[in-house]
Amino acid sequence: MGYKFKEEIKVRFADLDAYGHVNNATFFTYLETARTNTFLKAFNNLMEKGILLIVVKAECNYLKPITLNDKVCVEFEITSKGKTSFVIEYEINNGKSVTFATASTTMVCLDKNSGKPVKVPNELKEYI
Amino acid sequence: MGYKFKEEIKVRFADLDAYGHVNNATFFTYLETARTNTFLKAFNNLMEKGILLIVVKAECNYLKPITLNDKVCVEFEITSKGKTSFVIEYEINNGKSVTFATASTTMVCLDKNSGKPVKVPNELKEYI
Amino acid sequence: MGYKFKEEIKVRFADLDAYGHVNNATFFTYLETARTNTFLKAFNNLMEKGILLIVVKAECNYLKPITLNDKVCVEFEITSKGKTSFVIEYEINNGKSVTFATASTTMVCLDKNSGKPVKVPNELKEYI
Amino acid sequence: MGYKFKEEIKVRFADLDAYGHVNNATFFTYLETARTNTFLKAFNNLMEKGILLIVVKAECNYLKPITLNDKVCVEFEITSKGKTSFVIEYEINNGKSVTFATASTTMVCLDKNSGKPVKVPNELKEYI
Repeated sequence: MGYKFKEEIKVRFADLDAYGHVNNATFFTYLETARTNTFLKAFNNLMEKGILLIVVKAECNYLKPITLNDKVCVEFEITSKGKTSFVIEYEINNGKSVTFATASTTMVCLDKNSGKPVKVPNELKEYI
Repeated sequence: MGYKFKEEIKVRFADLDAYGHVNNATFFTYLETARTNTFLKAFNNLMEKGILLIVVKAECNYLKPITLNDKVCVEFEITSKGKTSFVIEYEINNGKSVTFATASTTMVCLDKNSGKPVKVPNELKEYI
Repeated sequence: MGYKFKEEIKVRFADLDAYGHVNNATFFTYLETARTNTFLKAFNNLMEKGILLIVVKAECNYLKPITLNDKVCVEFEITSKGKTSFVIEYEINNGKSVTFATASTTMVCLDKNSGKPVKVPNELKEYI
Repeated sequence: MGYKFKEEIKVRFADLDAYGHVNNATFFTYLETARTNTFLKAFNNLMEKGILLIVVKAECNYLKPITLNDKVCVEFEITSKGKTSFVIEYEINNGKSVTFATASTTMVCLDKNSGKPVKVPNELKEYI
């Protein structure tokens, strides 16, 4: 719904837990999959440069369970940006009117060697 | 640090992602593992009665990466309780002075058949 | 090549381990995802009837690592069938000339309540 | 019984799939966890030297499902050794008389940069 990016997720049988629904932790895997695939070229470049894109805060509101038969999309966009961090907001939906969850993650870019935050790299600026 | 419950987690190689750290989604698996193991007897009873213990909201603040060599404990307690829901607050630490993350989940008990919330069951009251 | 069924798998960042490749256990998740999605309608029917489709033996030959940037397909077919069991053979490839792995699983259908094998159900016969 | 190494595994709720049993792929995670934890010091040394310990073949015979309430141990030992590879055989059991699975993996040590096999390193010889 007006989000800038959209990525379809294929539910796997192994994503379900003993309740027969996609496990709560796996929702965060779906968020990660969506942003990683969307940013893939930038993501690869950053990896090569030794810059890690790290989650420093994550939250999710679970609205409806996801089953093996559901179509699942993650829509998202970067909603705010500081010097070394930015926030992504997400909606996990079925590509139509059903919303399974809303979520957000705060991301920081770290230098792999020093472990210290670096300025949000140019590779990501086109997405912001 | 004054939390009521404590569960040790064994880090698995498969918990690490390509950054060499425990993946961000896996932190939520650690929370789930801690509460499920601690409440195991109650949890089994509820499963048999067709009552599901569901996460409706989850959040985590990541403070320090976890590696394969870290000892990991989840300390937690139930900090508030409504009629059909309750909140658990967690600290993921190394059993000593290093805190890897703080987190919270809001839990609801659902009737498996109707999909509707039920009153927090007696099985869980001893933990509250 | 020449396999009856084909399912594309979307690699997730979380599928990678600290070596930067898809983890060895996740190859079996890919096999499961391929067969479950292909048999989805039959699979759902069996679940409702209380019949579980169980792996009793699995093996995989790993030929080439899979990275986040690879396209991944699982091609497979049922290659032999007994009274209560059948064998699936798989090739995990990039949809072209690169083979990542070959694998096989021996499957048995179990009655959920008795835990005993049942005859291969009609729902699956169309795939054999 | 009579295996050289033994590692206890803590079953996690997230290890279960929609059948309520530990997922078939997760058995291979248990094998990996057992060997990685047992060889941890050697494993860390090899990682630092850029030597990867890779599975080239894996197989598992599933004898009995594992539930959330089971105690799980992986017993194993290295049963044969070539110039650049070695074989590990495993039994997944409950620490007593119940065997959940038997399994084996063929391991190769690779140079991370060249991608080529190297002689089985001295770090691992003490386990053989």
